[in-house]
Amino acid sequence: MSNQELVVLDQTGETGACCPGLLTAPLDEGQAVELAKVFKALGDPVRLRLLSMIASRAGGEVCVCDLTPAFDLSQPTISHHLKLLRQAGLIDCERRGTWVYYWLLPEMTDRLAGILTRPAGDPLPAPAEAAGAAS
Amino acid sequence: MSNQELVVLDQTGETGACCPGLLTAPLDEGQAVELAKVFKALGDPVRLRLLSMIASRAGGEVCVCDLTPAFDLSQPTISHHLKLLRQAGLIDCERRGTWVYYWLLPEMTDRLAGILTRPAGDPLPAPAEAAGAAS
Repeated sequence: MSNQELVVLDQTGETGACCPGLLTAPLDEGQAVELAKVFKALGDPVRLRLLSMIASRAGGEVCVCDLTPAFDLSQPTISHHLKLLRQAGLIDCERRGTWVYYWLLPEMTDRLAGILTRPAGDPLPAPAEAAGAAS
Repeated sequence: MSNQELVVLDQTGETGACCPGLLTAPLDEGQAVELAKVFKALGDPVRLRLLSMIASRAGGEVCVCDLTPAFDLSQPTISHHLKLLRQAGLIDCERRGTWVYYWLLPEMTDRLAGILTRPAGDPLPAPAEAAGAAS
């Protein structure tokens, strides 16, 4: 269906595979607004469980009819959560006959993993005195 | 200050360095609740910018007095956002004299990066017919 939000985020990234670089340079406001939408979509237990059920399915896609029974929630509520994941660019779907089938868009989870990964060889940033005080 | 939330999340992880595995197996409800708290903390543009300012600081820590001027927000509002990042286990802080100093807790961003990373060699899960229909 729509990849509109994914395209918007593409424009804020420096390269295709990588990232604004959350840990290496201050995000500008536009980058932060776009990224926050994706993290907000992940900030709900039902949506995280739905995403993990979709992402871990061996065949690569899941019928909504196989997702709903795992939750004590109505079909419209599940569909709403799936819509938010789709609008964030994390999953996509297609209707085939009676049912809608969902699959992961791994480009987005790859991107999030990339921006949360420290540069290779980057030392732990906490100074020794601060780390000591925190324990 | 407090690492309480970080410890709770530790109990849901399978190993120290890694992860419940968002993309490899369905999350259970407890894991999803704990992870969602962290993603929710990241689901706000101001908090993302604060985190990136803290994480990318060369010296490893930042005085709150250096964070506030970047935002058109009051000091109490900034402090509230910093508190939510701290409660999520993403940063920690220490008061020294007049000011509070913040630093990244890279164990948490490492963990999030880990759970969002596909297993090595994992093919793109979208079936060819579904990917075609989505474009």
